[in-house]
Amino acid sequence: MKVALDAMGGDFAPEMTIAGAVEAVNEYDVEVILVGDRQQLSDSLSTKRYPSQQISIVHSSEVVAMNESPSAALRKKKDSSIRVAVELVKNNLADAAVSAGNSGVAMATSLFILGKLPNVDRPAIATIMPSLTGFFVLLDAGANVDSKPDNLLQFAYMGNAYYKAIFNVPEPKVALLSIGEEDTKGNELTKETFKLLKHAGINFTGNIEGKDIFSGSADVIVCDGFIGNIVLKVSEGLAETIIKMLKREVVGATTGKLGYLMLKPAIRNFRKRTDYDEYGGAPLLGINGTCIISHGRSSSKAIKNAIRVSAEMAKQKVHEMIAQTLGAHANKNS
Amino acid sequence: MKVALDAMGGDFAPEMTIAGAVEAVNEYDVEVILVGDRQQLSDSLSTKRYPSQQISIVHSSEVVAMNESPSAALRKKKDSSIRVAVELVKNNLADAAVSAGNSGVAMATSLFILGKLPNVDRPAIATIMPSLTGFFVLLDAGANVDSKPDNLLQFAYMGNAYYKAIFNVPEPKVALLSIGEEDTKGNELTKETFKLLKHAGINFTGNIEGKDIFSGSADVIVCDGFIGNIVLKVSEGLAETIIKMLKREVVGATTGKLGYLMLKPAIRNFRKRTDYDEYGGAPLLGINGTCIISHGRSSSKAIKNAIRVSAEMAKQKVHEMIAQTLGAHANKNS
Repeated sequence: MKVALDAMGGDFAPEMTIAGAVEAVNEYDVEVILVGDRQQLSDSLSTKRYPSQQISIVHSSEVVAMNESPSAALRKKKDSSIRVAVELVKNNLADAAVSAGNSGVAMATSLFILGKLPNVDRPAIATIMPSLTGFFVLLDAGANVDSKPDNLLQFAYMGNAYYKAIFNVPEPKVALLSIGEEDTKGNELTKETFKLLKHAGINFTGNIEGKDIFSGSADVIVCDGFIGNIVLKVSEGLAETIIKMLKREVVGATTGKLGYLMLKPAIRNFRKRTDYDEYGGAPLLGINGTCIISHGRSSSKAIKNAIRVSAEMAKQKVHEMIAQTLGAHANKNS
Repeated sequence: MKVALDAMGGDFAPEMTIAGAVEAVNEYDVEVILVGDRQQLSDSLSTKRYPSQQISIVHSSEVVAMNESPSAALRKKKDSSIRVAVELVKNNLADAAVSAGNSGVAMATSLFILGKLPNVDRPAIATIMPSLTGFFVLLDAGANVDSKPDNLLQFAYMGNAYYKAIFNVPEPKVALLSIGEEDTKGNELTKETFKLLKHAGINFTGNIEGKDIFSGSADVIVCDGFIGNIVLKVSEGLAETIIKMLKREVVGATTGKLGYLMLKPAIRNFRKRTDYDEYGGAPLLGINGTCIISHGRSSSKAIKNAIRVSAEMAKQKVHEMIAQTLGAHANKNS
């Protein structure tokens, strides 16, 4: 598999993206195409050790800034590293694209260049989150707001296909995020969506409440992108807050410094187990191709893993599975 | 202040509610009217030590079950403990009501018996949550779903008045929960609400993202009840999950049991600092009176604190402050 990496995208680019690419080719059977300023990239690469036939460079002359608007970037920066990376996928010169740059621009560019799959009304961002027993996928994590029941049904099909491919689970448990387990609990959107999911032909396990999402009882959790983004951000913020508070309590306790030293490895392991970096980013599902969007502050490990996951998604042809599922659903209902 | 306590409501009623009432009168200058089965309540009270003139009993013959629907309870159980407690407030025989029973029924009963304040379209549940620097109020935490911009504006006024009264802060910082700080970020509801809040004459600090709600940067956070309930429940679920995971890591570490013993006081302090029980429950704001709704699994400490907070709200006349604020706003706009 060949992955086109937006080497100029991210808070620590290109050092971190190059380091991630080097780690990826040293560890996995994957090729990486670095997209960005050829001189800068080749200078940096020349100091690294890696199987040289597995990394190549495609030049691009422009970089999208972190605060640039998607419409301006699409209109004015036709030779940006993110755009050139996605065009490589479009032209079958790469199997997948990864960007840790401006995420709004990465989304808009993938959508504009690759287009939506047939029968998809809106793409969705699928984020992997840790649970007590493993991981679950939450979608939409912020590609859209004000979704309709049909959009959420499509998110369920897309999340189902993605979870199958990444976690090798034949029948993922798909749940709808709401404020009560009964089908009568929720807002207008979830009540209508519940009816659609019941007959969707997937392993729909009903509504799931906020308090249960981390229990491991659902593999795929579906919601509107406004809610999904808030759930994701609240979770990230709370996890950091709790660790800060616990550290403060431990340091303040009579056992003081010693207690903190003993807590440290536990916190490190906890962070590792719940590590966003293990999956490196979130794919935009529903587009005609594979594109993973990573945090601006991605580490080289996150970039390495985003490359691995995007290659896996391309190999498993997740976007084709989504197209087939949605096609079958559209035929059934027509 | 006299507080009418639904003594039969809650998973551990009436033992826990009576214990909470006894703790409250032993600790605070407050009177409690226990509402429920006179025989059962007086038998249990006879074994307790407390200033006897501060607890009285009002008999009621019925109890609402935890799974009963609000409409059925309102129609069929006219002598339920929750209803009689709220009627005491209505008839000026009590200053506030507290219930740890069926929360849907408690809400519906307060609304039905006490009515809404003038200029309030929908009441809201205001939940107190811990932050890095203290506490903030989140509302609506689940009284309504599918709110409109005007509802959220009213929630902001109500939360503002409540925060002022409970935390004695003259100008609480009021923020709108959204998916980006800029006013252009959000869904239709938040974008419209942002415009209203900018000119609401309160200390509106703009949008707040999910990752920042625990930072202490906002005192009052406004959102639709579907979102608020999910944020509240996700936070509760995640806090428990993180503590479970950390315990597992600590016990599994080389330092094993010793590490766990050292972590225990920190977890205990952390729980204390972030303790829901400190405020005992959440008021339903926007009704013509004071009613606090507590968790079904409330401890006696939670009941005690709910009694304290409800008495404080009644003393500070929070519902009259809300009526005045909303009246002034309605006049300004008419």
